[in-house]
Amino acid sequence: MYDLIIHNCHILTPSGDIQRNCDLLIDAGKIAAILPTGQADLGQAHELLEGREMLAMPGLINTHAHVPMVIFRGLAEDVAIERWFNEFMWPLESNLIEEDVYWGMLLGLVEMIEGGVTTVADHYFFMDQAARAVEQAGTRAALGWAVFGDRGYKALAETAAFVERWQGQAGGRITTWMAPHAPYTCDDDFLRATVAHAQRLGVGIHIHAAEELGQTQASLQKRGITPIRVLAETGVLNVPVIIAHGCGILPEDIELLKRAAGPVGVAHAPKTYLKLGMGLTPIPTLQEASIPVGLATDGAVSNNTLDIFESLRLMAMLQKHEARNPEVMTIRQALQMATRDSAAVVGLADKIGQLSPGCLADVILVDLSGAHHQPLHSLTASLVYNTRASDVQTVIVNGQLIMRDRQILTLDKAEIVRQVNRSMERLSQRVLGKRIQVYNP
Amino acid sequence: MYDLIIHNCHILTPSGDIQRNCDLLIDAGKIAAILPTGQADLGQAHELLEGREMLAMPGLINTHAHVPMVIFRGLAEDVAIERWFNEFMWPLESNLIEEDVYWGMLLGLVEMIEGGVTTVADHYFFMDQAARAVEQAGTRAALGWAVFGDRGYKALAETAAFVERWQGQAGGRITTWMAPHAPYTCDDDFLRATVAHAQRLGVGIHIHAAEELGQTQASLQKRGITPIRVLAETGVLNVPVIIAHGCGILPEDIELLKRAAGPVGVAHAPKTYLKLGMGLTPIPTLQEASIPVGLATDGAVSNNTLDIFESLRLMAMLQKHEARNPEVMTIRQALQMATRDSAAVVGLADKIGQLSPGCLADVILVDLSGAHHQPLHSLTASLVYNTRASDVQTVIVNGQLIMRDRQILTLDKAEIVRQVNRSMERLSQRVLGKRIQVYNP
Repeated sequence: MYDLIIHNCHILTPSGDIQRNCDLLIDAGKIAAILPTGQADLGQAHELLEGREMLAMPGLINTHAHVPMVIFRGLAEDVAIERWFNEFMWPLESNLIEEDVYWGMLLGLVEMIEGGVTTVADHYFFMDQAARAVEQAGTRAALGWAVFGDRGYKALAETAAFVERWQGQAGGRITTWMAPHAPYTCDDDFLRATVAHAQRLGVGIHIHAAEELGQTQASLQKRGITPIRVLAETGVLNVPVIIAHGCGILPEDIELLKRAAGPVGVAHAPKTYLKLGMGLTPIPTLQEASIPVGLATDGAVSNNTLDIFESLRLMAMLQKHEARNPEVMTIRQALQMATRDSAAVVGLADKIGQLSPGCLADVILVDLSGAHHQPLHSLTASLVYNTRASDVQTVIVNGQLIMRDRQILTLDKAEIVRQVNRSMERLSQRVLGKRIQVYNP
Repeated sequence: MYDLIIHNCHILTPSGDIQRNCDLLIDAGKIAAILPTGQADLGQAHELLEGREMLAMPGLINTHAHVPMVIFRGLAEDVAIERWFNEFMWPLESNLIEEDVYWGMLLGLVEMIEGGVTTVADHYFFMDQAARAVEQAGTRAALGWAVFGDRGYKALAETAAFVERWQGQAGGRITTWMAPHAPYTCDDDFLRATVAHAQRLGVGIHIHAAEELGQTQASLQKRGITPIRVLAETGVLNVPVIIAHGCGILPEDIELLKRAAGPVGVAHAPKTYLKLGMGLTPIPTLQEASIPVGLATDGAVSNNTLDIFESLRLMAMLQKHEARNPEVMTIRQALQMATRDSAAVVGLADKIGQLSPGCLADVILVDLSGAHHQPLHSLTASLVYNTRASDVQTVIVNGQLIMRDRQILTLDKAEIVRQVNRSMERLSQRVLGKRIQVYNP
């Protein structure tokens, strides 16, 4: 017997091809087999789901976000990055209380589930609340409690205690990371202490670094080395690392990243970079050095959504645009980034990001029957260039159905929206001089 | 009595502000009044539509497309522009028969209606079929029958006869344009003959020109003048003109466009430019010279959809990206381009593109209650950065309901999809050496 059989869907294979008309057999949270439709005994299914020739693909992975920031979305538009931090984001975040993170995380998870995102690497505050929300939503997450150096070593130790409390919890769906904010807000000793915690706990570090070229230049001016070299010299690159953004990574940084002892991945959130005029992560250089680059949204105050299909499309199109060459970043390469590379970035290589027997059963069904996909000459072209988050019909994580025919089964969406709206006015206040941090890289 | 009252919606005003909780009164195809909810006598409505606090905005305008090309979408991916034309697009179009245009136009209209696009400036072949489709769909269109110079003056005269047959038809919803393909496929005498037809008929010219910098350079090399100067010297700029793309417009062209006797507008289709690595229309320079730039999709073989919300978002983000300045192209400016400027480009300034008494009643209702909009701190930010085509609930053109709660009332969508799918295999054939034209600008 199998826990679940999806009958008659098309499959996106790990190599980026389409295998038409298959049955997907799921058992004990994993993919048990993929068989041509007709070969499986449907009577062996505890639960049978009609695939209706939808496209089954690995659940999408958001490799860097601040999910609960959805509660602030739309509040910081058309402003430069210094003002974005100092006059908007960090003053707004001084309004945060613990329950805001809980409801904000739930709201963001609703949005992501509806858009086919099954795993998120989240970097925020009050992360016990975020973990509770993930536990209830039924999704997968790599969670880190963000900390600034000026909060001190006791605060750092508390973020390490979060790592211990939640590592492997929620049936293995939650992994944890240390999450120092950035080299420009954490001094070298603080980063070294973070590395010590990570090594003691056997986890990685999720950190912003070289977010844009201005930060790299400021670091060079202030201390003569790039932010990536700071990571190397403080030992951060000796443990697994998620580097958020990296739009300011220089050619000279690549060798450091290649030599890193811990696996390094870079999270690429193109919508944020466009909106804040940050430039782009040097994807071709990183990929040439075999450093995986994954897709991300960043927080919804810059993005302003949590839509990985949009990130995928923007990433692919911007690579063609920047190179003035439509032949670069093919559909196959783009899908590889969205799936296997993104899995590697969040430390789950070969566990998620592909539909193969033995992998965790994180699967989404995408309906390509809408007018905007017709006629369907190429399923993979439609997946990259035509698919909207609203085309995702069904979401399965760890073998469990969490959305079916666009109805979320695990969360009460109306109640979540009501709770978030209750706090809108309080959350939107900005008080002169009241902020959680100063941006001065 | 009024034909239709929309009760209790929020209104996007012509200046880009939001007027909350209004009733929109429509009569005889026009907007009769906008009143704060509570002031209108709802008993005066022949038909009453609950606005449910959705956002009412002008129907979107697609200022340059080849709508029936949806039948080829997904067939020319990851290839450079010369190959895109010579090995894919123009060979594929040699498969076209009249009824393909009819069913393709209907399919594209379904996609656009579902995405809130009420007007399209379309540039294609067999345009009687396209006009028939528009008539049935109930939308508005500015139609031009595309022609290459090598087809000769008789073919040109036939495109002028199309203009006469359809100008002002379908209750005024159809306007017509002459549509020579481009300066690199139409010689100067052919363009002069086109101008003569346009002047005789009192219509404008919709033409591709300076599509990308390479074309401008080729023109300079071959004949010493830019494509825009060709338009000036052949008299094209003496009649109303829609210039498609203009990514190769040079600073020296701006003065020519400013001095044009007929109103000039430029159609900007950012998704195509990214996908084909064409660079971008110089929007800031054009706007500084008071030349309206409108939003467009181009055809679905490059785009690969007909989604003006996506064009809007891409346009705004790319302006910030190119300038490395998040303060340029504000939400207000972006909405102005999507509405009033796009109306001006298609020759309907002050008639569509704004919700004001006396304007034609082309109205869409956008549902901003989805999780990806919540909490709704800013309706206009959500409109530009969060809205998906699938958020459009209701579409009204010329005062007539053509989509209600996402059900298209005028067309049989299932039948249209079936008809297009019937021809898929025939349409996807490419025969060596068989093409409708050669790309050699």
